[in-house]
Amino acid sequence: MEETPTLPFEIKLAAGASLVENTLHDLLAPRTLEGELHRPERLLMAMRHGVLNGGKRLRPFLVLETAALFETNKQSAALRVAAALECVHCYSLVHDDLPAMDDDDLRRGQPTVHRAFDEAAAILAGDSLLTFAFDIISASETDLTAEAKLTLVNRLARASGMGGMAGGQALDLAAEGSSLKEEEILLLQSMKTGALIRFACEAGSLVGGAQPLETERLAEFGSAIGLAFQLADDLLDLTSNSETMGKATGKDAAAGKATLASLHGIEWTRRQLNGLVAQAEELLEPFGERAETLREAARFVANRQK
Amino acid sequence: MEETPTLPFEIKLAAGASLVENTLHDLLAPRTLEGELHRPERLLMAMRHGVLNGGKRLRPFLVLETAALFETNKQSAALRVAAALECVHCYSLVHDDLPAMDDDDLRRGQPTVHRAFDEAAAILAGDSLLTFAFDIISASETDLTAEAKLTLVNRLARASGMGGMAGGQALDLAAEGSSLKEEEILLLQSMKTGALIRFACEAGSLVGGAQPLETERLAEFGSAIGLAFQLADDLLDLTSNSETMGKATGKDAAAGKATLASLHGIEWTRRQLNGLVAQAEELLEPFGERAETLREAARFVANRQK
Repeated sequence: MEETPTLPFEIKLAAGASLVENTLHDLLAPRTLEGELHRPERLLMAMRHGVLNGGKRLRPFLVLETAALFETNKQSAALRVAAALECVHCYSLVHDDLPAMDDDDLRRGQPTVHRAFDEAAAILAGDSLLTFAFDIISASETDLTAEAKLTLVNRLARASGMGGMAGGQALDLAAEGSSLKEEEILLLQSMKTGALIRFACEAGSLVGGAQPLETERLAEFGSAIGLAFQLADDLLDLTSNSETMGKATGKDAAAGKATLASLHGIEWTRRQLNGLVAQAEELLEPFGERAETLREAARFVANRQK
Repeated sequence: MEETPTLPFEIKLAAGASLVENTLHDLLAPRTLEGELHRPERLLMAMRHGVLNGGKRLRPFLVLETAALFETNKQSAALRVAAALECVHCYSLVHDDLPAMDDDDLRRGQPTVHRAFDEAAAILAGDSLLTFAFDIISASETDLTAEAKLTLVNRLARASGMGGMAGGQALDLAAEGSSLKEEEILLLQSMKTGALIRFACEAGSLVGGAQPLETERLAEFGSAIGLAFQLADDLLDLTSNSETMGKATGKDAAAGKATLASLHGIEWTRRQLNGLVAQAEELLEPFGERAETLREAARFVANRQK
């Protein structure tokens, strides 16, 4: 049997991003769905500015790759769920960038939504992206059972609401100027960035029709790389400059925010990252060769330079 | 057969509000559900400030009353759906009150969330209330079929997102200082306030297990009283003072916003309101005596003095 030629991971990631970009482009077209009255043009443009901005699409990629572990033909559903998740991720960026929050002017080298439009547009665009995510998953076009869609809606709501991502951002804002204990930093990060990355892997597994134990294992894989993602981010915040990142950096230090990396140092953080990659690979063990791209994703997340 | 003693409508509305208030109080308790990591205290307090504020609970009341038209025992599910809808309504108020939007300091006579807390807390509390609504409907505790819950999730998303309420607010902000045509005002209002009131009646009907034609009829009833609600609001804006309303009034005129009432005058508006009540009553005709409270609701909405 011939071996499948292996593409570099970055190429696979870019191919996934392109599929997700097309799906988002189509979903955010100037038309109306049944039950919608009208999509106001400027609001739609602000939403598109917040979403169609050339992001890496790591979370959607994880949805697609975990779904692809299973012997089902669910790529269309996986793409829609992936796009919904990206809408939630991007809504959080649009709101986090607001003057009352992190007050950022740039995102991926472009003006943030409130800079390109105005604050009211950014608030409403974020609100509408969040709402749209639940529309996308629950729509009849998403080819999954009602039970599967409902589970996805509920888990996404819990991963992104007060007990997940939004709660994590609230803790993060409260942490400015105070010194958190290590377990408080871990909780904050599990909520702010971990929960949605965990959901990405859980969601792909649900789309693929996995058994509950497989879903649990892939969700744990998501938690491991979610933590690695944050540690890598902290490391970059300590060591990088704004030219590489396309956004302001050193902001955690400037805001007096402790991170695990700043508490323990660069060497400790690199060892932790290696440990998390090993843990992630072990969690993928039952999925054999099919999970090779997810192993690469774990290493990519831990080693990323921007 | 004895006649059931009839309570005044305001007493029935207050009784419904009390049930919804208890449900919201319970849902927003300081605990965590499966899939939540932690509910940050200050965020939860800001959410509770935005929701548990003694509102009339008209939209949830419509959910409860339309559900009660049908021979099913779904009050617990109706209460949860009603509470979810109120979370969406209140999120929109919290965000609409922000300085970048309508910039209001008072809501129902109390400081708005960004005044009682801060802007970041108000943004995140709104985001979290919106997200929580989809959690509540999709949760296993909501005693409905997966199909019914999924339909509710999808219709709520469309009624409140870019093609509904949030889109209506975007149009409303864009309208400041410009003079809209009559059909543009109608579209704006159908989106900004009409869509969610329509959804309330549709949702109760879905909870009650109505036939599609019954649901359509009740949704139309919702549209009629949604328009009446807005016309009554415009009339109050023209004629009332801030003491009665518990919030700033005459703001539409001050902002140069045309309303149907300001275009056509007070007498025309009163005739329109009477016409909408008649239309609403006709739509309820097939439901007979059971719909008496909904008829009262239509009259209450059209004649309300605050």
